[in-house]
Amino acid sequence: MSLDRPRRPGPTVRTRVRVLLESGERQHEDRLATEEPLEIRLAWPGAPARRVWVTMRTPGHDFELAAGWLVHEGLCPPAAIHGVAYCTDVSLAPEEEFNVVTVTLSAPPLREPGHRHVGQSSGSSACGVCGKDSVSAALDVPSSPRWTGALPAPSVVRSLPALIETHQQVFDRTGGVHAAALTTAAGEVLVVREDVGRHNAVDKVTGARVLAGADPAEACLVVSGRAGFELVQKAVAVGVGSLVAVGAPTSLSVRLAESSGLALYGFTRADRVVRYA
Amino acid sequence: MSLDRPRRPGPTVRTRVRVLLESGERQHEDRLATEEPLEIRLAWPGAPARRVWVTMRTPGHDFELAAGWLVHEGLCPPAAIHGVAYCTDVSLAPEEEFNVVTVTLSAPPLREPGHRHVGQSSGSSACGVCGKDSVSAALDVPSSPRWTGALPAPSVVRSLPALIETHQQVFDRTGGVHAAALTTAAGEVLVVREDVGRHNAVDKVTGARVLAGADPAEACLVVSGRAGFELVQKAVAVGVGSLVAVGAPTSLSVRLAESSGLALYGFTRADRVVRYA
Repeated sequence: MSLDRPRRPGPTVRTRVRVLLESGERQHEDRLATEEPLEIRLAWPGAPARRVWVTMRTPGHDFELAAGWLVHEGLCPPAAIHGVAYCTDVSLAPEEEFNVVTVTLSAPPLREPGHRHVGQSSGSSACGVCGKDSVSAALDVPSSPRWTGALPAPSVVRSLPALIETHQQVFDRTGGVHAAALTTAAGEVLVVREDVGRHNAVDKVTGARVLAGADPAEACLVVSGRAGFELVQKAVAVGVGSLVAVGAPTSLSVRLAESSGLALYGFTRADRVVRYA
Repeated sequence: MSLDRPRRPGPTVRTRVRVLLESGERQHEDRLATEEPLEIRLAWPGAPARRVWVTMRTPGHDFELAAGWLVHEGLCPPAAIHGVAYCTDVSLAPEEEFNVVTVTLSAPPLREPGHRHVGQSSGSSACGVCGKDSVSAALDVPSSPRWTGALPAPSVVRSLPALIETHQQVFDRTGGVHAAALTTAAGEVLVVREDVGRHNAVDKVTGARVLAGADPAEACLVVSGRAGFELVQKAVAVGVGSLVAVGAPTSLSVRLAESSGLALYGFTRADRVVRYA
């Protein structure tokens, strides 16, 4: 391996820091969660790969992140993902080699990939693609058939954050990342992923199930942070039965959970949990 | 006031929740942080208003959010903001009346408003506006002259999170929002704002200074959460001297702070703080 060859970035990097105490200062080595941009490109039969999203993320499980994001966005059903690969575009700078992923679909996407509402910048109040007003369109949620199996009992819900914490390796080293997990109703952990971006961590657990050929609509999605609208939107989009958050929900996330039949829990602790919907 | 007239949304809403304890269940009334979409439109002489962004945010200080976002994005210097108003477009649905804000500039924006990189979806790998590759462009940072006055002493830095907490009224009631603040080097709090979105809280404090005719490049920006790349990017864009976070920074935020000469602090507590750059 030549020295010029880019190294695949890991989930953490070392750095020297100064700790400033009341009694003075000391230097030591510390670890930071890695944050790098990831560009997701989409290709399908007869269509060349085109960029559909750029996000800041913690490297690792990039294929899962790309696959999960596409499914959460309602761009394709899980079965339509034909392949995922790092881009080999010769025009890429060496440091970008592991920051561009191409997902190949077996059929055209279910909607125009350019059609996003939150965070988008386009030229008029009505969306150029669907003609809808952007504010109401931001509240549109792709949805899947809801999980119809058993939901976790309250005692299981209360146990989940501590259970997930035992899997949070990057957080242990950096204190700087969010975690998401999918579990069964009995509290069995199916997959845990970490990322500097809370939404990315959810995309990764969904993508992990999708790429393993499993259904991402499971009994329970657990998140280490708060449950804002966009996380509830992701839960509804894949049809999970319940969303368990360590932090608080918002007004809009409770409204969406209620209208979608999603069981929503917040402020989850070992001895108590609040059920919102 | 007729019953049909939309009510301006407040920062919190009431809800009934069920608290699930080991010993059983009890119901009580709780408060949630309000989350609603906000559409920002931009107009300038000779150009009709057009949408440039949609974000989920906590209502309140919407004009500041819009003004601060534009300045952080490098779309205009603070002095070019001529006016900010809720949109009176007759085609808006009643519930959207307070969710659309139009900013009027006294001159055209400094760059094409559609030209965003992170989170965008466009049709090719190279940006349609600037021709740059999207991954490297995501790392581009608009920058302003850096604060050249005194920076806070370590004892002041350690005191800031507790000081800001005394201003966090929405957090007290909901536990569900982030806060940002601008302070002097001596630790005097100039402005504090809260929002469900950590980036929005920073946009609001910058916008508050801009709309008050003050310079947003102050000694210190304080954030209640982590210091990811996009928050450091915002700090650099307006030229503040230091960024003090209660949570962790990331690899990319430390790199950007170092290359920009921004003093970056994380894991800030009353008795210790870590200096990263």
